[in-house]
Amino acid sequence: MAEAALEGLVDALRRLPGVGQKSAQRMAFHLLQHDREGARRLADALTHAVQAMRHCARCHTFTENEVCSTCSDARRNARLLCVVETPADQAALERSNSYRGLYFVLMGRISPLDGLGVDDIGAAELLARASDGVVDEVILATGFTAEGEVTAHALGQALKARGLKVTRLARGVPAGSELEYVDLGTLAHALGDRR
Amino acid sequence: MAEAALEGLVDALRRLPGVGQKSAQRMAFHLLQHDREGARRLADALTHAVQAMRHCARCHTFTENEVCSTCSDARRNARLLCVVETPADQAALERSNSYRGLYFVLMGRISPLDGLGVDDIGAAELLARASDGVVDEVILATGFTAEGEVTAHALGQALKARGLKVTRLARGVPAGSELEYVDLGTLAHALGDRR
Repeated sequence: MAEAALEGLVDALRRLPGVGQKSAQRMAFHLLQHDREGARRLADALTHAVQAMRHCARCHTFTENEVCSTCSDARRNARLLCVVETPADQAALERSNSYRGLYFVLMGRISPLDGLGVDDIGAAELLARASDGVVDEVILATGFTAEGEVTAHALGQALKARGLKVTRLARGVPAGSELEYVDLGTLAHALGDRR
Repeated sequence: MAEAALEGLVDALRRLPGVGQKSAQRMAFHLLQHDREGARRLADALTHAVQAMRHCARCHTFTENEVCSTCSDARRNARLLCVVETPADQAALERSNSYRGLYFVLMGRISPLDGLGVDDIGAAELLARASDGVVDEVILATGFTAEGEVTAHALGQALKARGLKVTRLARGVPAGSELEYVDLGTLAHALGDRR
């Protein structure tokens, strides 16, 4: 490929997470051959999103306004604050239809391998947000991975030191599982937390 | 997600081949959180490529010029014309460093399920191109899939009717294979075409 415009497009597509050289080429050929309208729409959507999206002043998720729609919803229970890693995690909890409190979105997690410490995930902002006098329970809903657990532990310590009630999502056997195929760590937790 | 700019970006990313809702969300969050510069570069690359790229008048591949660099290369053997499905296939043949003729890129293949017939892959242009009086062998290098075989068969018939010599890439055991793991169809072809 000796074509600069095509190479530039393939290189730019490769910066997307999970896209390597072959996928980027396939995407570029597809857009140029079959979906030039889609390419124009994607260019506009990128430009618009970069200009319009910023972080919610209260929960840190992406929003076009000063405060996001969830944080401005007066029907939500402001005494519960649920801490999640990403907007996608928040969306998953919303889809479960079983939580009506507010959120704080870390936009990451502690990850020593990526050089991300407790200061890079907005811990100070979370402490300030949780100490507003209204919140009385912080639910740590970071992932149950090594990095998510470390994040929950570090944030939990800091929040408890401020006198806040801190809880963590329950661990246990997922719905639809056969016990035979559940990993031993999960089984041990499910036994320990039986009710 | 009640944010229009974010939803618009996710929808636009979903139009890329192989990208579903979750990947599109992950890409959008990644660009907005960690790589806004990459988002701007991608928007520019898309706009530029859509404006600049068109089809080579001789071989149909993407180029910024009237005729692509391969077709304008006088050192190439103009008597050999290799027919491939995509620019990526052409690039793979080039990397093999064993072909110095010219190409014709179909930009697709016959695919009844997608409603693509022999007229949608530039068969008429190929026949005109191959009948220029210089080409004396057309090498059909479409894929060895069902659709690639149908394409090669249809094009081969039409080219032979014009009195052109038509060949197909050899079938056989790939380099590095253990016979035990090669499929039976390939083994049968490798036996039949033994040399």
